[in-house]
Amino acid sequence: MHGAAILTIHSPAINSNLKPNISFNEKIMTTTELTQALQWRYATKSFDANSKLSDEQVEALTNALHTSPSSFGLQPWKFLIVENPEIREQLKAYSWNQPQVTDASHLVVLCVKESISEADISQWIARLAEVQSTPLDKLAPLQGMIHGFTGAMDAATMQQWNTRQVYIALGQLMTAAAVLNIDSCPLEGISPSDYDQVLGLSGTGYKTVVACALGIRSSDDKYATAPKARYPREHVISVIR
Amino acid sequence: MHGAAILTIHSPAINSNLKPNISFNEKIMTTTELTQALQWRYATKSFDANSKLSDEQVEALTNALHTSPSSFGLQPWKFLIVENPEIREQLKAYSWNQPQVTDASHLVVLCVKESISEADISQWIARLAEVQSTPLDKLAPLQGMIHGFTGAMDAATMQQWNTRQVYIALGQLMTAAAVLNIDSCPLEGISPSDYDQVLGLSGTGYKTVVACALGIRSSDDKYATAPKARYPREHVISVIR
Repeated sequence: MHGAAILTIHSPAINSNLKPNISFNEKIMTTTELTQALQWRYATKSFDANSKLSDEQVEALTNALHTSPSSFGLQPWKFLIVENPEIREQLKAYSWNQPQVTDASHLVVLCVKESISEADISQWIARLAEVQSTPLDKLAPLQGMIHGFTGAMDAATMQQWNTRQVYIALGQLMTAAAVLNIDSCPLEGISPSDYDQVLGLSGTGYKTVVACALGIRSSDDKYATAPKARYPREHVISVIR
Repeated sequence: MHGAAILTIHSPAINSNLKPNISFNEKIMTTTELTQALQWRYATKSFDANSKLSDEQVEALTNALHTSPSSFGLQPWKFLIVENPEIREQLKAYSWNQPQVTDASHLVVLCVKESISEADISQWIARLAEVQSTPLDKLAPLQGMIHGFTGAMDAATMQQWNTRQVYIALGQLMTAAAVLNIDSCPLEGISPSDYDQVLGLSGTGYKTVVACALGIRSSDDKYATAPKARYPREHVISVIR
């Protein structure tokens, strides 16, 4: 772990299981606001190194990661929120020296769980039973379904499948940031194996997949004011009526 | 195409390129509201077949797909919004008969572009030059970087990479839906090759990856009121201080 202790979060919020507490009739963001937020978002190349996200913002982003959907709810991932500046300096060297790694307020490293074993499935079913106060035998059909689905995969296929789940979380994280007016930059241009070494992941069953810098854009980032570039909508979206 | 015409959307909104128009100081959603929305979201098993999303909602979700981030902005995807009931009936048969496929207001099929050719890279660079009024020669370094990155991949690796990008869009779509209080259910339990056949994708260079049903939850979906199940936060998230 190269001298850095991995501390866990012991926030009282969300760790418990809340019942859904808002109705779907209660609009909490207008469509226009959402569209503006997603239009405002861009892959931030230059972060303001002096702007730090508030505890409240970090808490909300952490919750977005925590609640991210995954296939069967298996959550085949680990998210490392790297605050330690020395570690981030080390990671920058394995990120084509992209300044976002050290300048952004926060850096999240999204890691994949390489495989899902029988024990992992049993652990998840036990967790479900606990959280939803459901007898284990009622969850046996679900357990069988997960077993059947994952049992048909070879190791490489399973790791790819798990990695795709991690990208759902990356998508949720960046969208969540956008609606809070927090800047983000996904970082695929990194050396995962070197990240693994710096972060002490070797032998843990988890591997670095992708990183995401989060913070506030620098006022001099020329990309911030560039028109958003996408293909024309009809190039990528079709409606089958 | 089995009788269904693929019509493109010709909405005047967003298709043009808007400059970012909100400041990051302008909070458009509170952290509490976001957390509530993500807590409210769940993989909806039973949709109200009589509840249709409004045009405005569909427009916002379409925009969320359109603005989804992707590596180098390459957008290696196609999103099919399937409204046609007969087509959806056919797809249901290739989806383990999950009722969401036909009952949800809308069904999005997320497809991957199998490969990125030199011509694709040139097309993207040309689009960037057009949208951002940048001379092509100024984009040559970026083009070289994309070329170098993609050129090092074999066909299978590239398709997996592109598929991961599609999952970013899936994440953005579900999160966007949640903040609008729109229900969603990701559907991986489908037969992509059969979807390809029904949707006429064979030979197009695009393949079905995953689907997502969108609409309004049924009032009798027992899963809607079940406590949200995730591992304890410290199981999946660590902070490196």
